[in-house]
Amino acid sequence: MAPDKVQRTLTDGQEEWSVYSKTRSTISGDSLSKDEIEKLTKWFHATLYLCLGMLYLKENPLLQEPLKKEHIKPRLLGHWGSDAGQSFTYIHFNRMIKKYDLNALVISGPGHGAPGLISNFYLEGVYSEFYPNISEDKAGMQRFFKQFSFPGGIGSHMTPETPGSLHEGGELGYSISHAFGAVYDHPKTIAMTIVGDGESETGPLATSWHSNKFLNPITDGAVLPVLHLNGYKIHNPTVLSRIPEEELIALFKGYGWTPYVVAGSDLEDMHQAMAATMEQCVKEILAYQKQARESGKAFRPSWPMIILRSPKGWTAPRKVEGHYLEGFFRAHQIPLTKVLTDDAQLQQLEKWMHSYEPEKLFGKDGKLVPELRELAPSKGKRMSENPITNGGSIRQPLSLKKFQDFALDVPKPGVTHGASMEYFATWLTHVVRDNPTSFRVFGPDETQSNKLSKIYEAGKKVWVNGYLPEDEDGGNLDPKGRVMEMLSEHTVEGWLEGYILSGRHGLLNSYEPFIHIIDSMVNQHAKWIEKSLEVSWRQQIASLNILLTSTVWRQDHNGFTHQDPGFLDVVVNKSPEVVRIYLPPDANCLLSTMNHCFESTNYVNVIVADKQDHLQFLNMEDAVAHCTKGVGRWDWASNDQGAEPDLVMASCGDVMTQESLAATALLREHLPELMIRVVNVVDLFKLMPNQYHPHGLTDTEYHALFTDNKPVVFAFHSYPWLVHRLTYKRRGQHLMHVRGYKEKGNIDTPLELAIRNEADRFSLAILAIDNLGARLGNKGAAAREHLLTRRLGCKNFAFETGMDPEDQTNWTWPY
Amino acid sequence: MAPDKVQRTLTDGQEEWSVYSKTRSTISGDSLSKDEIEKLTKWFHATLYLCLGMLYLKENPLLQEPLKKEHIKPRLLGHWGSDAGQSFTYIHFNRMIKKYDLNALVISGPGHGAPGLISNFYLEGVYSEFYPNISEDKAGMQRFFKQFSFPGGIGSHMTPETPGSLHEGGELGYSISHAFGAVYDHPKTIAMTIVGDGESETGPLATSWHSNKFLNPITDGAVLPVLHLNGYKIHNPTVLSRIPEEELIALFKGYGWTPYVVAGSDLEDMHQAMAATMEQCVKEILAYQKQARESGKAFRPSWPMIILRSPKGWTAPRKVEGHYLEGFFRAHQIPLTKVLTDDAQLQQLEKWMHSYEPEKLFGKDGKLVPELRELAPSKGKRMSENPITNGGSIRQPLSLKKFQDFALDVPKPGVTHGASMEYFATWLTHVVRDNPTSFRVFGPDETQSNKLSKIYEAGKKVWVNGYLPEDEDGGNLDPKGRVMEMLSEHTVEGWLEGYILSGRHGLLNSYEPFIHIIDSMVNQHAKWIEKSLEVSWRQQIASLNILLTSTVWRQDHNGFTHQDPGFLDVVVNKSPEVVRIYLPPDANCLLSTMNHCFESTNYVNVIVADKQDHLQFLNMEDAVAHCTKGVGRWDWASNDQGAEPDLVMASCGDVMTQESLAATALLREHLPELMIRVVNVVDLFKLMPNQYHPHGLTDTEYHALFTDNKPVVFAFHSYPWLVHRLTYKRRGQHLMHVRGYKEKGNIDTPLELAIRNEADRFSLAILAIDNLGARLGNKGAAAREHLLTRRLGCKNFAFETGMDPEDQTNWTWPY
Repeated sequence: MAPDKVQRTLTDGQEEWSVYSKTRSTISGDSLSKDEIEKLTKWFHATLYLCLGMLYLKENPLLQEPLKKEHIKPRLLGHWGSDAGQSFTYIHFNRMIKKYDLNALVISGPGHGAPGLISNFYLEGVYSEFYPNISEDKAGMQRFFKQFSFPGGIGSHMTPETPGSLHEGGELGYSISHAFGAVYDHPKTIAMTIVGDGESETGPLATSWHSNKFLNPITDGAVLPVLHLNGYKIHNPTVLSRIPEEELIALFKGYGWTPYVVAGSDLEDMHQAMAATMEQCVKEILAYQKQARESGKAFRPSWPMIILRSPKGWTAPRKVEGHYLEGFFRAHQIPLTKVLTDDAQLQQLEKWMHSYEPEKLFGKDGKLVPELRELAPSKGKRMSENPITNGGSIRQPLSLKKFQDFALDVPKPGVTHGASMEYFATWLTHVVRDNPTSFRVFGPDETQSNKLSKIYEAGKKVWVNGYLPEDEDGGNLDPKGRVMEMLSEHTVEGWLEGYILSGRHGLLNSYEPFIHIIDSMVNQHAKWIEKSLEVSWRQQIASLNILLTSTVWRQDHNGFTHQDPGFLDVVVNKSPEVVRIYLPPDANCLLSTMNHCFESTNYVNVIVADKQDHLQFLNMEDAVAHCTKGVGRWDWASNDQGAEPDLVMASCGDVMTQESLAATALLREHLPELMIRVVNVVDLFKLMPNQYHPHGLTDTEYHALFTDNKPVVFAFHSYPWLVHRLTYKRRGQHLMHVRGYKEKGNIDTPLELAIRNEADRFSLAILAIDNLGARLGNKGAAAREHLLTRRLGCKNFAFETGMDPEDQTNWTWPY
Repeated sequence: MAPDKVQRTLTDGQEEWSVYSKTRSTISGDSLSKDEIEKLTKWFHATLYLCLGMLYLKENPLLQEPLKKEHIKPRLLGHWGSDAGQSFTYIHFNRMIKKYDLNALVISGPGHGAPGLISNFYLEGVYSEFYPNISEDKAGMQRFFKQFSFPGGIGSHMTPETPGSLHEGGELGYSISHAFGAVYDHPKTIAMTIVGDGESETGPLATSWHSNKFLNPITDGAVLPVLHLNGYKIHNPTVLSRIPEEELIALFKGYGWTPYVVAGSDLEDMHQAMAATMEQCVKEILAYQKQARESGKAFRPSWPMIILRSPKGWTAPRKVEGHYLEGFFRAHQIPLTKVLTDDAQLQQLEKWMHSYEPEKLFGKDGKLVPELRELAPSKGKRMSENPITNGGSIRQPLSLKKFQDFALDVPKPGVTHGASMEYFATWLTHVVRDNPTSFRVFGPDETQSNKLSKIYEAGKKVWVNGYLPEDEDGGNLDPKGRVMEMLSEHTVEGWLEGYILSGRHGLLNSYEPFIHIIDSMVNQHAKWIEKSLEVSWRQQIASLNILLTSTVWRQDHNGFTHQDPGFLDVVVNKSPEVVRIYLPPDANCLLSTMNHCFESTNYVNVIVADKQDHLQFLNMEDAVAHCTKGVGRWDWASNDQGAEPDLVMASCGDVMTQESLAATALLREHLPELMIRVVNVVDLFKLMPNQYHPHGLTDTEYHALFTDNKPVVFAFHSYPWLVHRLTYKRRGQHLMHVRGYKEKGNIDTPLELAIRNEADRFSLAILAIDNLGARLGNKGAAAREHLLTRRLGCKNFAFETGMDPEDQTNWTWPY
C-alpha cells in the first residue's frame, strides 16, 4: 500500500468543483462576437425574468409599476435552482440547431426546473401557438405567470401540458433512458438531454448511461447529455459535484462517453466556453454518424457529453440576510421566501428582476423585441414544437398479420397441451419483421427464457458492444437487432416509454416477480397518459404493453423471492381510463389479447400468461368470442344448462383455470348431482361495476354469470384479495370465496405450491363442499375426506420425489 | 472531431476481455508455494464437486459406485455459472482471514450461485454445526445434496436458512448497499462482497458503488467488492464484461475505487494472481484504517476492489455436443441438461465429477481429509458463522427516552394546531444521541424537508466527500454524522436493511409518493423476515421502520406525479406475521406509535404521518390508550352516548381525520338530531378479521364499533378500495362507504385536492346524508344543498386566489 494513494483530506480540492474561480473548460473558445454574446445574454436574461415571473407574479408582469405585495402570488411555488443552467444550455443548443440545421428535441431531467425551459418555449412563440390565450403580449404574459403552479393552471414540472415535452421529470431517474428510447429508429434526431446532478444519484439514471451500448449510429439518432452539476439537491451537496474532477472524468469515460467540462459563473466566459463545447459535441456527433452511415459499419464511438458546472440558482443574490443563496442549497426552490411579509425582501426581488432590464427585452406591449426573436430556430425547427414530443401525431398503426392464422389447433377443450407463449412468439415474429422501424421488443435478459426467442429470426438482440467468436454459437447479437435486453428493468422500461412517447410501438416482457422493480415508473407513465387525455393537442400514443410471464405458480422451483403476483394491485389503483389487465387462459386467447393490445392506444396493458406448457381450452373462434366478452361461462365444462347452478366455479389466469377445472371435474366425479357453472375471466376489470371502469359489467350482467345467491369458488392468479377489492359492491359478496397466492412459498413442485396456498384442485373442491353446507350430506363428507387424502398424498409425493404425480401434471378434462 | 476517437469496430479488442489468453493481473505474484497451490486447488475442487452434487445427486454422493440415473434428482435445478468464481474468491479471502486475523463476512450478489459458497460452508464444518443432520459424513453429504432446490429443502440462493448469509441475492441489485449497511458502525468488520456482472447492470447496484462517500474509515468497517465478470447473464453477454478494459478501469476509478484486475482461466496462474491481489487489497484496507484511526482524521481513500474475470461455469467442459458450455451463457444454470435421458451426458457428468478426484478429497466416510480442513479459518473466524450475519444475535434494544415526556400539550381535543413531525423530531433527537453506534436515520435528501432536521443536533449528515466553506452555513455535514442521505431510495433502503440485518436499528424517512421506487426491495425484505421466522437459529432483528410523510393530501402543490399513497397496497399483501401499518392522527399518537415501532422486532412497520401543521386531538394519556387499542370511538366528538348511532363517521390518517371531523361538525350543525359515532383507526390491520391478521378485531369487537346495520362513512388516507379489501368479510359491507385518494390531482390547494377526490368535509357530509335516506326529509335536502354550495364556493375560491378560505384551513372542533 502506497501512502500517496490516500487521495485527499476532507477539505482538499475545492478549486476542482468551485464555480466561483475562473471559468474552466475542456474546450476553450472565443468564437462568439461581442454582439452575439450580448444577444445571448439578453435572451438568457429574458428567460430568467420570465422564470421569476412564474414563481412570484400574478400581476404587473412587466414591472411597469412599482412591485407591491398585491402583485405577488399568495403561495410561492416552483423551483429556481436549475432554471438558469437549463436555460443557458437550451440557448446554446438553439445556436447549434440554427448553424447545423439540426432536428432536435430537449429532455429535462430536472423537470422541477421547468421554468428554465418553459420560458424559452414562450420566447420562441411556441407556447402561444399551442395556447393562444397565453399570448405574446402583456396580458398573455400575466396569464403565463399566474397559471404556473396555480390551481387550475399547470404544474411546476415539464408536464404533459407543456409543448415540446415527453418527459415530466416529476420522479427522477429516467431522462437518459427516455432520451435513448426517443432516438432509437429516429436517425435524424438528436435528444439534447439535461441531467440533474440530483437525478444522477438515482439507480435508474446511474445505469442508464450504458444505453450507449445499444445505439446503432446508422439507424438511430443521438443523445447529447448535459450533466448539469449545480452542486446541490434539496438540502445536500450532490455526490458527483463533490468528487475530484479526475474521478468525474474517469467515471464518464468509463461509461463510454467523452466528457467535456464547462465550469464557471462569469457569464461572458461561460458563453464562449459553452459555445465552443456545444459545437465540438455537435460536430463529433455528425461526424460519427457520417462515418457509420457512409461505411455501413455500425460501431460505438465514445459519444460526446457535456458536464456543466454552474452555480445553483445562478444569477440570484449570492447572499441573503447573511446566508448563502446562489451557489448553495437554499437556491433550490423559492429563492426569496419572505417577499409577502418582508418589505426588504420584496424590494430585493424587485431590484433583482429589474436587473435583467425587462424594458430592453420586451416592448411596452410585452412582446419580445424582434432582434432577440431572431435567436430562435426557424419555425419547424424549434425543439418545443418537435412532433416527436407529441408522439401520437407521428404514430402509424402497426402492420399486424391476422392472428387467427396462427391459431393453435384445439379440437376439443381441455385435452391438448401446448406452450401458449411459443404460439404467440410465431405471430410476434411477424410483428417484428413487418414493422422494421416502429416496433421493438424489450426485456431484462429474459426474452429467451420467456420462450419468445423465435422472434430472433426477425430481429436479433441489439448489441453495439464488444463481440467474441462464440457469439456466433447462438448468441443472437446484432447491432441491427430489434430486441433490447439489458439487466435493468428500469432501463428497458425507460427505453420503451421513450420509444412509444415518441410515436412508436413496443412490448416489454418480464418475469412477473421482478416487475415490482418498476412499479413507480409504470405509475408515472399512467399518470402521464391520464393528464395527456386532458390536453387537447396531445395525440394518442401506442399503449404501454407489459407481458408478465414466468409467473408465480411456475416459480415453484426458484423459491419465495421469485413469487409475487402483486403488480396488478399497483396497476388497479391507476385511472380506469388508462389501465387494462388481461389474463388469457390459453394460447388462442393470448393471441387474441395481444392483437387487441397492439392495436390499442393510450393504455397501460398488463398481460399475464405463463410460459410453460399448459392445457389448452378454446379454439380460435371461441377464444376470440371469449376475449371479446372478457368473461364468460364455459358451456363445455358446466352442467347447469338451462338451470340455476348450485355453485359457480370461477377462474382467472392460466394455471388457476386449469386447477379450477380439475376441481370441477373432481366435484362432478364425486357429487354428480351438483349443478356447476364454470366461468372464466380474461379481462380483470369486467369484475368491477361498470360505473367505475369502462370495461365493468353491469350488475345484471355480473349476476347473470356469478348469481347473487350461490357460492362462487374463484381461483385467481394473484393475491386473492384483489378480487374482493374489485367486486365488493356486488351482491352476494359473502358467497364469494377467492383463492390465490397468499404469500406461502419455498422450493416446491407446481402442485405443492398451489396446495401450500390452498389454491390447488383439491382445496378448491373442498372449499366448494364446505360452502355448499349440510345439503350434501354424507356424500359430501365422504368426498371431502377423499380429497383431503389425495391432497396429502400429492404433498408427500412431492417431498419424497421432488415431483408431482404424473396424473396431476398431465391432467385433462375427463369427457 | 478526431477520427481516432472512433474507438473500435465491433470485433476489435477481444483479448481485453477473453479469459482464455494468458492470465493477466494488475498485481502479479508468485508468493504461493507449490504445496499451497495444490491444497488450494484441492479445496477448490472439493467445493466444485459438492456444487455438482447439489445440482445433480440424490444418492451415491461420493460416486463410490458407477453413476446411474436413479442417483440423479428427477428435476435439475440450481445455477452452476458463477459457482467456481465465487468459491475461488471465498477460498482466497479465507487465506487472508488466517494470515491477518480478520473479522469478515461474505455477501454474495449472485445468490443464484449459492452452491459456490454453501459448499465452502459445509467444508468449513459450519453447515453441520447449524444442521447436525447435514453431518460431515456420507449420509450427511447425501442429505446436503438432496435438500438443495428440493421440496422441503432449501432454495437455490443464499436464503435465510443458510448460515453466514444476510443477503439472499434472489432479486439482484442490493449486494453493495447491504454490505455497506452491515459495516457501518462495525469498525472491525470487512464485508467481502461478490458482485455479479449481471447484477452490475441494475440501477440500484450501479449507483450503490458511491456508498464509499458515506463511509468513515475510523468508525466504520470496510467493504471489499469483487466484481466477478464471468461474462454472461442468462442468455446475453454482460455490458461490463465487454467494454474495453480502459473503460472498465476508468469506470471504477470514477466511482472512487482502486480496481485490481485478475483475469484468466489457468488455475495455477490464477491462484498466484488472486493471492497477490487479495493481499494487496487487505493490506491497503488495513493501512487506510490505521492511518485514519491513528490520526483521528476521517478521509475517503480510493478503497481497493477486485475485478475477477473467470470463465462462466469455470471447470465445466468447454464444449458439449459441438456447442460452447464453459465460458458461455449455456453454463448459466444446469450445465448438462440431458443426463436423465442421454447416457452419454450421464457418463460425461460422471467423468467430470471424477475429474475432481473426490476420493483424494474425502475419506471413504465422506469426511474432508484433515490436511484440507486446515485451510479453513479457525473456529470463530469463519465467515459462515459471523454473528453479524445473524444480526439478531448481537442486537441490543434501543435506549429510548420516555416518549410521554415529549408530549404535545393538548388541553382539549381538536382545538390546537401543531406540527406532529417536529414533536417527534425532538424525541428522535434523543434516540440518535442515546444510541450513538446502533441507530441511524436514512432518507433520500428529505430529512430536512420532512421537518426532522432537529436531529442534526445529535448527529449530522454523513458526508465523506469534498467540503466547501459554505457548508458551514447550515450544511450540517460531518463524517461522524448519524443521518444517511443520498438521492437514491434504493441505496438508503439497502443501507438500512444491511444495518438492521447486522444487528442494529434505524429509520427510513421518505416522501410518500416515491416510496414505490423501493416496493420490490421492501417485498424482498419482508420475505426474508418471514423465512427467518421458520429458521430456529435466526434471532429477531430490529424492525424495518419506514416513515412516510409529505403525503398525498399535502402534495396538492407539487402536482399529480407526487400523489400516490399506494405503497400500503403493496405492503398488505405480505405475510401478516411480518407487516404492520400505522396512521397516527396527531403528534402524541405519532410519538406513541414510533416508540412501539422502535421497540418491535421482525416487522416491516410502515408509518404514515404528514409533516405539515395539523389539528391535534389527543393528550398523551388518551393517545397511548388509543394507539394501544389501535382503533377506537372518540367520545368527545360523538353524540351517540349510550345509544345506537344513526351513522358512523370513521377515519384513518391525519388529514382525513380532520376532514372527517369537520364533516361530523357540519352534520351536527345542520342535523343536530343525528346520532353520530366517530371512530378513528391508527392500526390499519385492526380492520382485518382476527383470523387473518394477529392485530385484527374479532367480528364482535368490529361490529361494536362500526355496527353491522348503520352507514359508515370512512375517510381514508390512501386509495379507498384498500379498506374494502380489508373489511370485505365483515357484515354490513354494503353500508361501508369509503372515500380516499382516487387518482384525481393536479396543482391544487389542499382542500381543493380533497374536493377533487370527494374526500373533503362537504363531500363526506353529503355522502352521509345520501346514505341516511329519506328519513332526513326536507331538512336533509336543505343541508345537502347548503353543503354543495359551500363546496363549490371553496373550489371557486381556490381557482381565483390559489388559497383555501381561512376558516377551512384553520378549522377547529366547534365546542
